[in-house]
Amino acid sequence: MPPEAVSSPSSDQARAPLFEAMRDYAANEGAAAFHTPGHKQGRSMEPEFRRLVGEAALRMDLTELDELDDLHHPEGVILEAQALAAEAFGADATYFLVNGSTAGNHAMVVSVCDPGEKLIIPRNAHQSVVGGLILSGARPVYMRPVWDDALCVAHGVTPETVEAALVEHPDAKGVLVVHPTYFGGASDLRRIAAVCHAHGKPLLVDEAHGPHMHFHPDLPTSGMDAGADMVVQSIHKTASGMTQASMLHVRRGRVDLNRVRNVLGLVQSSSPNYLLMASLDTARRQLVTSGHRLLDETIRLAEQARRRLNALSGVHVFGRDRCRPDGLFDLDVTRLTINVTGLGLTGFQALKHLNERFDIQPEMATLHHVLLIVTVGNTARDLDRVVDAFAALSAEAARSGALRHAAVPAGLPVPDGLPTAALTPREAFFASTEAIAFEESEGRVCAELVAPYPPGIPILAPGEVITRDVIAYLKVAHAMGGFINGPEDARLGTIKVVLT
Amino acid sequence: MPPEAVSSPSSDQARAPLFEAMRDYAANEGAAAFHTPGHKQGRSMEPEFRRLVGEAALRMDLTELDELDDLHHPEGVILEAQALAAEAFGADATYFLVNGSTAGNHAMVVSVCDPGEKLIIPRNAHQSVVGGLILSGARPVYMRPVWDDALCVAHGVTPETVEAALVEHPDAKGVLVVHPTYFGGASDLRRIAAVCHAHGKPLLVDEAHGPHMHFHPDLPTSGMDAGADMVVQSIHKTASGMTQASMLHVRRGRVDLNRVRNVLGLVQSSSPNYLLMASLDTARRQLVTSGHRLLDETIRLAEQARRRLNALSGVHVFGRDRCRPDGLFDLDVTRLTINVTGLGLTGFQALKHLNERFDIQPEMATLHHVLLIVTVGNTARDLDRVVDAFAALSAEAARSGALRHAAVPAGLPVPDGLPTAALTPREAFFASTEAIAFEESEGRVCAELVAPYPPGIPILAPGEVITRDVIAYLKVAHAMGGFINGPEDARLGTIKVVLT
Repeated sequence: MPPEAVSSPSSDQARAPLFEAMRDYAANEGAAAFHTPGHKQGRSMEPEFRRLVGEAALRMDLTELDELDDLHHPEGVILEAQALAAEAFGADATYFLVNGSTAGNHAMVVSVCDPGEKLIIPRNAHQSVVGGLILSGARPVYMRPVWDDALCVAHGVTPETVEAALVEHPDAKGVLVVHPTYFGGASDLRRIAAVCHAHGKPLLVDEAHGPHMHFHPDLPTSGMDAGADMVVQSIHKTASGMTQASMLHVRRGRVDLNRVRNVLGLVQSSSPNYLLMASLDTARRQLVTSGHRLLDETIRLAEQARRRLNALSGVHVFGRDRCRPDGLFDLDVTRLTINVTGLGLTGFQALKHLNERFDIQPEMATLHHVLLIVTVGNTARDLDRVVDAFAALSAEAARSGALRHAAVPAGLPVPDGLPTAALTPREAFFASTEAIAFEESEGRVCAELVAPYPPGIPILAPGEVITRDVIAYLKVAHAMGGFINGPEDARLGTIKVVLT
Repeated sequence: MPPEAVSSPSSDQARAPLFEAMRDYAANEGAAAFHTPGHKQGRSMEPEFRRLVGEAALRMDLTELDELDDLHHPEGVILEAQALAAEAFGADATYFLVNGSTAGNHAMVVSVCDPGEKLIIPRNAHQSVVGGLILSGARPVYMRPVWDDALCVAHGVTPETVEAALVEHPDAKGVLVVHPTYFGGASDLRRIAAVCHAHGKPLLVDEAHGPHMHFHPDLPTSGMDAGADMVVQSIHKTASGMTQASMLHVRRGRVDLNRVRNVLGLVQSSSPNYLLMASLDTARRQLVTSGHRLLDETIRLAEQARRRLNALSGVHVFGRDRCRPDGLFDLDVTRLTINVTGLGLTGFQALKHLNERFDIQPEMATLHHVLLIVTVGNTARDLDRVVDAFAALSAEAARSGALRHAAVPAGLPVPDGLPTAALTPREAFFASTEAIAFEESEGRVCAELVAPYPPGIPILAPGEVITRDVIAYLKVAHAMGGFINGPEDARLGTIKVVLT
């Protein structure tokens, strides 16, 4: 949609109405404050906190004063700031989120689904999407993400998968996709949007990792640009929001804006933090006015590091050359998913080396990979350090004979079918549960999410019946050294099931 | 319970484990950061935001690094910080909240009530309590708060009211009270806790306005000290938390801690802001080590201001002399509720004068009052300014003949009965609705909260049937100049009702 916002921003995009109002308010030394927060612009803040965090930040930790509007009923500077964000990202309406993209995913799911209604989601959706299902009482219809066996990475979904789900479930209220994935994998979102709209359904996009994409043509198409109806973005993840600051963008037509506002009023704090909101306002200004230039350099640095890393023995980082219509459709190249199995290391071990010996902090590790999030905050020096560290690890592996030529070993294949759902996520959440021996859980209804990494796709979701095959699969995943995300007992000695 | 925390804090209370870990991490200049947030400790933050908020704060906007633990699965410094908070406030377990007390009220309600179950709450509970009912699907049983006709202020509830509700609804799952109210009114919480426990029910306390109370003997008894089972506190309101930073305290026995953790995992961001969390850690340290001394001075300043304000013609601030067992049981004297009707002004007009002419920012106004929140962040000079401003307003009123001797006029009495509930709040939230003329809404099911100030008590809640009496009452409240909180059309030309 409107990339005018990038090429020729309206003059108002140089403004940041909320931030500026806070700046002006904080500059006034005179007011006697008898409102919250209790620290009164830092005056009584705990001394060490004030000294180290700084008085300037605390002077701007403000509240719903007349000049500063009200997130839940915006009529002034917050309304203006949100309108500028909508213009910048190509939305009809944008809402600032102070409870992270969690709140946005909740709002998307609950505003589309009444209790008992169906929503089509990928099996590797974020837990906050499942959270939205729990809040709404909706019923998930799962799509299988593209599984890249050679990379041991799950990507997005194909338009064909979306079409098939809609044909099989014409009563579904909408489709939600993750775009891009944690590993930067993008789907053919324009075609997916067209498929959804041909069926008269809204497309919801969890774009937590993609707020920068709209601002550079060498990045995958953003949800709003592809025609999606709702898009959630963690502005803090790849743009200049403070942690926990996100946005929800909405396109009019298939979505009830009134319902969206009601849900946001329900799931977000009635005392929203103004620093978080102001950072959304200035992050938008930065993306519009300097995003293209800054991202140009970030993309260049990431691509250069990718090439240099791939030149090292035992190291592999997939790139855009991996893209094909029925697999990884497109890639956010600023995401570096570094396969380290060729070094004779697990991702967990490599991460420890990077941390302890090279003072490099990756985002996370899987059994096979270390994942780096490269943003406009990174410098050439940062990426040089990564390449140098891996050069050292590669040389060490060569010396010790650990180097393997098959840089990308086969991972655990993803099971074909899905377990049967006996309860909705909401029913399972409220059910009474007990922890029993995992070995003996066949036939019971699972009350937890169980997502082994790899493959990073849940094998069991709350409300699903545990089968012998699932037990066998998870035992193999654990024995391989995979990390089991979700259950209280990550070693799967026990599992939480619904009381019968 | 254990006021040892105040008189002889364990030596560890001088520590702030989470804050200190962040301080130490931020002091390290060396790490190459490939994790979120994207601004990488401020490096690429929008320039004006960075300059005005300060680099120091941004260096501490961190994420779940090994050293910094994980709010949703705490095993390190967050676990320690929460344990110190539990010790300080007299709880068995404390949870840090980054989505405000909204998240805490949600957690209290949802962890006690399954869908369809009853919870006993005061009619003037915060909207986030109703939010908890919407999330859980629980059914409210309303208690009538004490209405102080002479003050035009609603207080808490009496133990007799709680007892009567429990006798009438033996199937209720628990009792929730607001303590103190927005106006500082405290209930006889020890007796209320005893009543609840005699019936085998947990007592939940929305103590959003009371985190300081435990730390000074001249303040009302805190929820935890009174024996409550769960207590939510907005640390940002009257202690040194950053806005949106709260705590949930839990006593073991009548509450399922596992369920509490599950609900918090559901309703809180999966990217919690570390500055908010760290401010909880240092706010606790400050309360334990200096709270008594600081509050001593705050109480002295507030009481002195109360006396000086009450000496002015046309101004009235109620104090502890107003307390009696069956009414306002106790009062947080740091809260100044200034009745201005004797000046011939509404609270809204007085607030405007204070703002525009005296640069004083109250917390809020009602038709009759201006409300000031006095905290350890206020100075003698702040309170002198308030007294001087009211002295000027009083002199002006005397000159213009506006001064009235009946400083406290009668307000609108609270209706005796409650409307009939046709739907639960959850059912009403998900129902299809339409806006119709308020005049013609008799017999329809309301889909909004309608709370006129005064009396500051909802007259209609979502799911309740609109009667002729309710229509007449709200028209009078609006004609009196009352502010109608809740409905989309605050002038009540229209009202949102459930589609039939």
